[in-house]
Amino acid sequence: MRTEDIKKRVKSVFEGISYTRGLEGTKKTDGPDIPEAVFIFNRNGIDKNYLYFTGLSGGVFENCGVVAESGGKVVIITTALEEELSIGAVGYDDIIVYRDEEEREKAMKRLFSSYKRVGVAYDRIPHSFYRDMKAISEKTEWVDISGAIRLTRMLKSPDEIERIERACEIADRAADLIPSMLKEGITEIDLGTEIDYRVKRLGASGPAFDTIVAFGENTSKPHYRGTAVPLRPGDPVLVDFGAEYEGYNSDITRVFFTGKPEAELVDLYSVVSEAKELAISLIKEGESARTVEDKVKMKIDSFDRYRGRFIHSLGHSLGLDVHDDSYPFKSHGGKFCENMVLTVEPGVYLPGFYGVRLEDDIVVKKEGCTLLTSPVKEPKTYEI
Amino acid sequence: MRTEDIKKRVKSVFEGISYTRGLEGTKKTDGPDIPEAVFIFNRNGIDKNYLYFTGLSGGVFENCGVVAESGGKVVIITTALEEELSIGAVGYDDIIVYRDEEEREKAMKRLFSSYKRVGVAYDRIPHSFYRDMKAISEKTEWVDISGAIRLTRMLKSPDEIERIERACEIADRAADLIPSMLKEGITEIDLGTEIDYRVKRLGASGPAFDTIVAFGENTSKPHYRGTAVPLRPGDPVLVDFGAEYEGYNSDITRVFFTGKPEAELVDLYSVVSEAKELAISLIKEGESARTVEDKVKMKIDSFDRYRGRFIHSLGHSLGLDVHDDSYPFKSHGGKFCENMVLTVEPGVYLPGFYGVRLEDDIVVKKEGCTLLTSPVKEPKTYEI
Repeated sequence: MRTEDIKKRVKSVFEGISYTRGLEGTKKTDGPDIPEAVFIFNRNGIDKNYLYFTGLSGGVFENCGVVAESGGKVVIITTALEEELSIGAVGYDDIIVYRDEEEREKAMKRLFSSYKRVGVAYDRIPHSFYRDMKAISEKTEWVDISGAIRLTRMLKSPDEIERIERACEIADRAADLIPSMLKEGITEIDLGTEIDYRVKRLGASGPAFDTIVAFGENTSKPHYRGTAVPLRPGDPVLVDFGAEYEGYNSDITRVFFTGKPEAELVDLYSVVSEAKELAISLIKEGESARTVEDKVKMKIDSFDRYRGRFIHSLGHSLGLDVHDDSYPFKSHGGKFCENMVLTVEPGVYLPGFYGVRLEDDIVVKKEGCTLLTSPVKEPKTYEI
Repeated sequence: MRTEDIKKRVKSVFEGISYTRGLEGTKKTDGPDIPEAVFIFNRNGIDKNYLYFTGLSGGVFENCGVVAESGGKVVIITTALEEELSIGAVGYDDIIVYRDEEEREKAMKRLFSSYKRVGVAYDRIPHSFYRDMKAISEKTEWVDISGAIRLTRMLKSPDEIERIERACEIADRAADLIPSMLKEGITEIDLGTEIDYRVKRLGASGPAFDTIVAFGENTSKPHYRGTAVPLRPGDPVLVDFGAEYEGYNSDITRVFFTGKPEAELVDLYSVVSEAKELAISLIKEGESARTVEDKVKMKIDSFDRYRGRFIHSLGHSLGLDVHDDSYPFKSHGGKFCENMVLTVEPGVYLPGFYGVRLEDDIVVKKEGCTLLTSPVKEPKTYEI
């Protein structure tokens, strides 16, 4: 990623901080509580904010950090282990390499001493690391910028949308290959393995998350993962998966029928599919996420047999993380904004019978939204 | 997992809390600072401590929590979405289902009101969640039990070792298949895809982490991940991967030669292999991790051309997390203890030339250690 794009991104976050000031526990005044820098550190695995501020698309980067100043300057703090890869991301001048914890603490102390106020994402940093930071640099005032980062990250730049489009295209193409994998006796686990393999062969760096495969009655459990259950003719097949492409993710759910599906199941699919279409027809800049979700729930609840069976949120923001903020959004006043990338995924779960969830990805536009994936409106049946 | 095993595990953690009391910021007195319960909550992805206290082997369980009392009683707090799967883990009486944040906060407040003191892993809980907990239950005294959990989790029970053995067996078998995948022109990424596919086909729930594949000069970058670089005859091939089996992980690194390897490269392999053998010969209960690491570094440094080129730790604890505590351990007085499961992974990195890292997994015993994976002592060369 170009240095100029990173600078622009950093500036957007600082604009977001101005905007969310007062919402995140900071005082609501007109300037002095804005931090001079933002600090991200990878403590338990990689914090996606680290990728956001460095422009890196993946890697380990354990115990590496980044300081981004309001002017756009970015400094990476890295272990010797990640030095070479970090140099690939930014100029050599902007890298501090440390060899042990003592050196890291010294580097942090030195860095923070030049700022009065530093912003940290309290929703990502472990409490113990926060406590340690406070002890290292007593004079620094720490402020929570979780909201500002969430706010900024939810609005995608053209290059971010391009990567998500590619991730969506890969998921669509992998979904097209699934019918050829549906054989009597294949297990949920093995179908998941085949899908993940295809996702990577199609150019993804990996599956976006642990692929969910559910056969038959298991489809009624929204977060069921997959076991050694074999596929039997007549089983519905629910797959919920995505692709990660250059750090960005897609997330789709498809339901396939095998054998001769029961009429109730075909009806269930149609209702969920129509609920999704309704959502997509309503989403546009300025519309309230809660209103859209409520309308979709009302539509589903209008069928006695499905009342109260849509038990999760209508979707979530998609980007570097798969599960960013969910509907109804806490940020952006709970309203859809241009260039948000979201999943739309109504589902109806009937314990003891079946469940159907259908999920597509969209980008919000001024006058509506654009689909990034290809919905399958009519249920398709495959002989196995 | 049986309820009795969970109870035993919970009791071990509380024993660990007694042991680490005073080390984690709590007062060093003789009883009253021990919490009555431990609280784990999945905020950013699943906290492996959640699996540890529930006996579940995987899943999503976003925004689910667990309270474990010193007597061994375990209560799960779950969203409606995860209710059915949670019931599978514990008895129905021990589950609190909440429908929104307000209900969750009420449930937490009610739960915590019955305890004076609750232990939380400060190294896992986001600072913002810690802050919210304090606000929800003002009278509760929170204590850090990160150390106690780390301490307990590092010492594996027989059933944990069995699962890791299975994860190691899968990695070994996948490694045996790698030579058949080495074809001129295959890219690092595609080799990684084939390995991951094999790991899953062999029974793993997934790769233990993002598989690292490096060809040629890329082997000199310890955390290099893999790109579209094609394999050329003569390139060394470094693969660092593992298998996850029922939540537990293996982690091995193998180096293969193709074509006719340079004599310097064969020498490099031999030195690293001997360094690993030295480490394995020294590790036993009571031995200092730092001493062993220092001896291995000294051995490598005794070769002028490799001096200072072993730039990471000798290994790390292996279990529910792949990268638990690294040598020299902060817990257990920095000493090896019976039933620790560890990686042993010396590496020598020569920028501009090649790097070799060799990694095997072991379990520490009273009089030595037992290998869980099959080391490849002599470098093997394959025609491609």
